Amino acid sequence: MQNMIVCKFGGTSMADAAQMRKVKSIIDLDRDRRVVVVSAPGKRSKDDEKITDLLYSCHKAASDGKAIAPYFSVIRERILAICKELSVVSDMASRLDEIEEKISSGASADYAASRGEYLSGLMMAGVLDATFVDPEEVVRLTADGRVDDATYPMVAEAMKGPGRYVIPGFFGSTSDGKVKTFSRGGSDISGAIAARAVDAKRYENWTDVSGILMADPRIVDTPPTITEITYREVRELASIGASVFHEEAIAPVRSVGVPINVRNTNDPQAPGTMILPSRDTAKRAVVGVSGKKSYRNLYVEKLMLDRYPGFRQELLTLLQERGIVPEFESKGFDSLSFLIPEAYVENDNAVLEAIRANLDPDEVAFRPSLALLGVVGEGILEKAGIAASYFLALQKANINVRFINYGGSEISLLIGVDADRYREALRALVEAAV
Amino acid sequence: MQNMIVCKFGGTSMADAAQMRKVKSIIDLDRDRRVVVVSAPGKRSKDDEKITDLLYSCHKAASDGKAIAPYFSVIRERILAICKELSVVSDMASRLDEIEEKISSGASADYAASRGEYLSGLMMAGVLDATFVDPEEVVRLTADGRVDDATYPMVAEAMKGPGRYVIPGFFGSTSDGKVKTFSRGGSDISGAIAARAVDAKRYENWTDVSGILMADPRIVDTPPTITEITYREVRELASIGASVFHEEAIAPVRSVGVPINVRNTNDPQAPGTMILPSRDTAKRAVVGVSGKKSYRNLYVEKLMLDRYPGFRQELLTLLQERGIVPEFESKGFDSLSFLIPEAYVENDNAVLEAIRANLDPDEVAFRPSLALLGVVGEGILEKAGIAASYFLALQKANINVRFINYGGSEISLLIGVDADRYREALRALVEAAV
Repeated sequence: MQNMIVCKFGGTSMADAAQMRKVKSIIDLDRDRRVVVVSAPGKRSKDDEKITDLLYSCHKAASDGKAIAPYFSVIRERILAICKELSVVSDMASRLDEIEEKISSGASADYAASRGEYLSGLMMAGVLDATFVDPEEVVRLTADGRVDDATYPMVAEAMKGPGRYVIPGFFGSTSDGKVKTFSRGGSDISGAIAARAVDAKRYENWTDVSGILMADPRIVDTPPTITEITYREVRELASIGASVFHEEAIAPVRSVGVPINVRNTNDPQAPGTMILPSRDTAKRAVVGVSGKKSYRNLYVEKLMLDRYPGFRQELLTLLQERGIVPEFESKGFDSLSFLIPEAYVENDNAVLEAIRANLDPDEVAFRPSLALLGVVGEGILEKAGIAASYFLALQKANINVRFINYGGSEISLLIGVDADRYREALRALVEAAV
Repeated sequence: MQNMIVCKFGGTSMADAAQMRKVKSIIDLDRDRRVVVVSAPGKRSKDDEKITDLLYSCHKAASDGKAIAPYFSVIRERILAICKELSVVSDMASRLDEIEEKISSGASADYAASRGEYLSGLMMAGVLDATFVDPEEVVRLTADGRVDDATYPMVAEAMKGPGRYVIPGFFGSTSDGKVKTFSRGGSDISGAIAARAVDAKRYENWTDVSGILMADPRIVDTPPTITEITYREVRELASIGASVFHEEAIAPVRSVGVPINVRNTNDPQAPGTMILPSRDTAKRAVVGVSGKKSYRNLYVEKLMLDRYPGFRQELLTLLQERGIVPEFESKGFDSLSFLIPEAYVENDNAVLEAIRANLDPDEVAFRPSLALLGVVGEGILEKAGIAASYFLALQKANINVRFINYGGSEISLLIGVDADRYREALRALVEAAV
């Protein structure tokens, strides 16, 4: 492991010159912060536009045979103002001309979208007096937008010297030399790639929040920030429904064990959240609670189900033919219960009739829809009474438990409640967890 | 529905003349008790022999070319003593001669085994002054020992007159006229067949216990008797592991809704247990708790499991090829957990190696074995807090919960705990249920 720290900054950290100065002061605080990964300039206020959205508008206009100037002029003005204020990238005007020309003459949507990060990178390299590394040359993506392993040695080679490096996030190029953006996860993935490539001691992910929260703050009042969380726990929280760190952005560092530190550009003193390979569960068994508001609950009963070994598979095939893919299932001795994301079921009666006609069940019905909540923590299976405390919390809130899945994952307790009790249930579980 | 009551009496109720007199007094108490189904004479004391076992010994001796007299003489003596004491079946000696002759000359094991019920039937018909109905003529079985639907009208026809009928349980005949015993469930099935055939208002199943108990009395001190239980609940308790009423003996009456009343020949005043199509769950949400002591717990983890849609099926196939059939499974986002009956897994390492070699999991291991306990009741999904009370009971007993399956069946909560805590867990759950 090298002593380098890779720092990724999100769109709000790139939104204007003042934010970029904050970034510089953060980088200057620790000499090991030598690799900086940047997003495109984001919103400066709630009603502002993101540079990336403007770039997509430019591409759309060009595709429609219209002038892109109405959109590109906004970009130009904003970028040049930042450069002027920070006295960086003296040739920015001509670089912008080149980009405008390319988009006007039919460059791809991926090329257009990637220019926001590209411009951020040029500016931050100037601010930090760092070497600019173009992802088009060192980040290799597959045709479906995933990272090719050839990337790591190329990135490492480009950053092997002393001093600082700035690399734009969100894009790379395919083997045939075309600019390509990531299909999911954006610049967070670029940061993880760089961290793995340079064998960083830490991957700092600077955002506009002071770490990962225990629960959705739109539902739970001021949920505590998670101090330490494992890769697995992040993945589990995200899978259940939380908008936390994207799994694709963890995968590159997970296999090599680089810790991720989620920090706040606007509150650099806050320690944020450490995402680690493992953690001490004695301090805290559970890290967070997340959920999804609504699943359809398909219940099928057939007496002596064990005598029909193909029943489950036939049922799943029949559902799949109708575009229905259950996310969870639970088996009784004579029954099966499936939780299906709400959007998948268009016509209840058609589904029920098809099951009746093909599988001759004793009963088949959509039970009232459920919300599914997950209590997540590496310590959840270790301590007697953990399960009880959560069910007790729901009981006190007078919320019926309709579904439990526990033991399939070793780090989460999944609880189904009536869909209309979702918010109350989330609050009750968080209260029990803190 | 007719007003008839079908009464089935078990082996201990047929064990000697005194027991048979008790049966008569029970039948005499209610004029609607017009159909009596009997088992073979059972043990009179703990060290006694069952007539059926003696008959199997006769058949075995005959097959081995040995004399059957050493066994048959015991049967003869016991049966003739009963007939003499009760002054019934004046030609019993010659009937026994005929049976001995047939078994000696190579009659089938099914024929031999069925003669215990046959003899009970002859005697009880005498005691009750009832018409004897031979199942060989009216109960039609398939080659694999299940009830053929042709049975019902034949039994109904044989019992359409006034007065009482006695029919031996446990056997019938195949379409080619051979005596055939039931593969599972014995005389209880015969009783259910008769009850359905005559459209009985009740099927009384007379045993040597005063009904179905809430839990295994070998583990829980004096568990309460269940007053009312549904067909589904009986099936669920039995599936989880309780030795309660056999499902095969419920199936015939379940579809027509005849209530089953489990009673005690030695305590005829006790109301016993009513098995019903439905019951009032407001009175009691949960009826019983049962369990199985030991399951192997196979845990498999693979990151981004959803990207490998064939993973689960390949794993199950691989297990099946090694004779391993999981009874329960639970799915996490990146993991699968299987509960496998202990006896199925012969060589841990061979199984783990095969999974590693074929499926490249991130982790695969047998976690410590689990006991699985089921809290069963039609009301279990209805009431907030039901789940909590059981987990709280386990918490108080300091027992860790390792696995929960809830919602797959609408009438049971399945809980996995460390195998060595099985008895304590059962006691804790029963205490919470009463």
